[in-house]
Amino acid sequence: MQTELAKKLGIEFPIFAFTHCRDVVVAVSKAGGFGVLGAVGFTPEQLETELTWIDENIGDLPYGVDIVIPGKYEGMGEDDATKLEQELKDLIPEQHRKFANELLESHGVPEIPDAEKMQELLGWTEATAGPQVQVALSHPKVKLLANALGTPPPDVIEEIHASGRLVAALCGAASQAVRHANAGVDIVIAQGTEGGGHTGDVGSMVLWPEVIDALGDTPMLAAGGIGTGRQMAAALAMGAQGVWTGSLWLTVEEADVPPAQMKTLLDAGSRDTVRSRSWTGKPCRMLRNDWTEAWEAEGNPDPLGMPMQFMVTSNAVQRGHKYPEQAKDVNFNPVGQIVGRMNKMRPTRDVIFDMVSECIDATERMHNLMNQNAEV
Amino acid sequence: MQTELAKKLGIEFPIFAFTHCRDVVVAVSKAGGFGVLGAVGFTPEQLETELTWIDENIGDLPYGVDIVIPGKYEGMGEDDATKLEQELKDLIPEQHRKFANELLESHGVPEIPDAEKMQELLGWTEATAGPQVQVALSHPKVKLLANALGTPPPDVIEEIHASGRLVAALCGAASQAVRHANAGVDIVIAQGTEGGGHTGDVGSMVLWPEVIDALGDTPMLAAGGIGTGRQMAAALAMGAQGVWTGSLWLTVEEADVPPAQMKTLLDAGSRDTVRSRSWTGKPCRMLRNDWTEAWEAEGNPDPLGMPMQFMVTSNAVQRGHKYPEQAKDVNFNPVGQIVGRMNKMRPTRDVIFDMVSECIDATERMHNLMNQNAEV
Repeated sequence: MQTELAKKLGIEFPIFAFTHCRDVVVAVSKAGGFGVLGAVGFTPEQLETELTWIDENIGDLPYGVDIVIPGKYEGMGEDDATKLEQELKDLIPEQHRKFANELLESHGVPEIPDAEKMQELLGWTEATAGPQVQVALSHPKVKLLANALGTPPPDVIEEIHASGRLVAALCGAASQAVRHANAGVDIVIAQGTEGGGHTGDVGSMVLWPEVIDALGDTPMLAAGGIGTGRQMAAALAMGAQGVWTGSLWLTVEEADVPPAQMKTLLDAGSRDTVRSRSWTGKPCRMLRNDWTEAWEAEGNPDPLGMPMQFMVTSNAVQRGHKYPEQAKDVNFNPVGQIVGRMNKMRPTRDVIFDMVSECIDATERMHNLMNQNAEV
Repeated sequence: MQTELAKKLGIEFPIFAFTHCRDVVVAVSKAGGFGVLGAVGFTPEQLETELTWIDENIGDLPYGVDIVIPGKYEGMGEDDATKLEQELKDLIPEQHRKFANELLESHGVPEIPDAEKMQELLGWTEATAGPQVQVALSHPKVKLLANALGTPPPDVIEEIHASGRLVAALCGAASQAVRHANAGVDIVIAQGTEGGGHTGDVGSMVLWPEVIDALGDTPMLAAGGIGTGRQMAAALAMGAQGVWTGSLWLTVEEADVPPAQMKTLLDAGSRDTVRSRSWTGKPCRMLRNDWTEAWEAEGNPDPLGMPMQFMVTSNAVQRGHKYPEQAKDVNFNPVGQIVGRMNKMRPTRDVIFDMVSECIDATERMHNLMNQNAEV
């Protein structure tokens, strides 16, 4: 099942796995897929450590890095970012911070010690993303850089291409896909509304063929709702060059997810997610919980836009990471509707092999269905 | 590509077409698919006229009828319905009626003459649906009765089965599919959030395999987002026994859609729909327009529940039908996200044949992809 893109990247199966966990990156690539490390939240130094570890464990296999460069901060230096951060801070109503804090307090989630508090805009400016790109490009096994938010700036695309890598970018609409391709992006990842994290409202079934047709020769990876080989077969049947999966890797044995959060994920059904602006300010699919409900409820503050809402909530994100047990009902759990199928922890290798085998079976079944009359 | 279900119904292609237009029913069945007439809005007498016309024009081919029997009105007689209607009427805030009326007035949509005004609960009680079932069962070429809203009552299922027909019912969640199957429903239609009309929030990509696995031997038709052969191939690859399509038939040449509404449909993109409670009280996918926006806007009345919101808006529906030109920005346009692909009027026959041919091509492409290594 090697698509053209899989051949180009030298991988056996066109299964791309987005994950924040280096162990999963290695396990996916070793099983014949393509692991992609999400870099957001890592300092350049931390990212260097992660990639070095991956290099040491992945053998000669390729992998990718996913970085967030919001278009509107393009070309912004560190000083500008600090200035902007202060300006934005001044615009945040005090009641929003108070409301967020009270939500956590009412659930008994402790405060983060001052010394450990992270910068509120971390990962959302080129001041952070730029050095991350440099780190990624210094690791020869990194064969793909993906941007999760918008078209990467022209100089970034140029630099990645000059180093012999491919550039990918996510989209939720055909018009955005075309903008990516026109800017020189090599691979467009089209994510339907089913997907976890920031996502649009057009379903995968409609979005994928629309994007494929709009792109022409630029390859598309299908994202949003894929967790089985049948779904992979469906995506390939529609013309995708591969599948981009994320949620699926939260519940593999190699994943570094705290027990309380793992249980929440394993227990959730496909109807337990919601597209909510309550964490980042942009519609983002996540598990519904006390936090998302509270920001929805009438009379409570409406979520601000991006990046202001994330400045309000970044402290809560950090508290959720540090105290997952206490925060289990007010934690940030970005995940897609496929969470309903993630009911037990499995080794990454088994997930990949089952997908491949089911995809082959589905194709065979289809082929027989189409050719039964000819055989009679 | 005859699935087991297609064989059972004696049709060539497992393409089921829901439509309110008898010409489309005939054209679909004649092209090898299975036309299904939506009966809601027809009196028993009108339905009798429609089915007689279909019988006279469809030759020996089978077709279906779709009827709305809301579970909660089960077993309600005509007197009870009238009483309930009055009770519900008393509960409707005057401001809702006023708001609806003002919206139409501000767009210059004339009033309906009193003599032509339809009953507000029309089609939503067994008092209407019961006789519709009887009419349908008196037409031998009707081979399938579908219920668009919930599990049909046991006596209705029994009567349809006793007459040798199949019963289908729509669902938007696996648990609902299982309830249908346990009640004796023969075919479950699982509609993803992409679909037009009343629809849940789980995307087709996630919903279909979930329902298929939950159902076991009961066949599932895939609905929500299907308009091309590639999407049909995707649905069949995931294990659907066929596809259930609705939106697609609004823009065929045989469709009886007024020019103003047709233009709105042909111009709309996949991002121009919204799941709104503003017409029926339940989340229903339709084109976004001044009406849906107004009911969303802060400060305006919130839509009531079902059936009360529909009692508020049924007059507006009727005015939209009668004056489509004036009502073009405040009309009820239930349609799925596939509307983005419906860009020109085409003959029904071409739509079916293109779907079939593209579905075969997609399967062939998949088959080659899976077997390329073996061939080398």
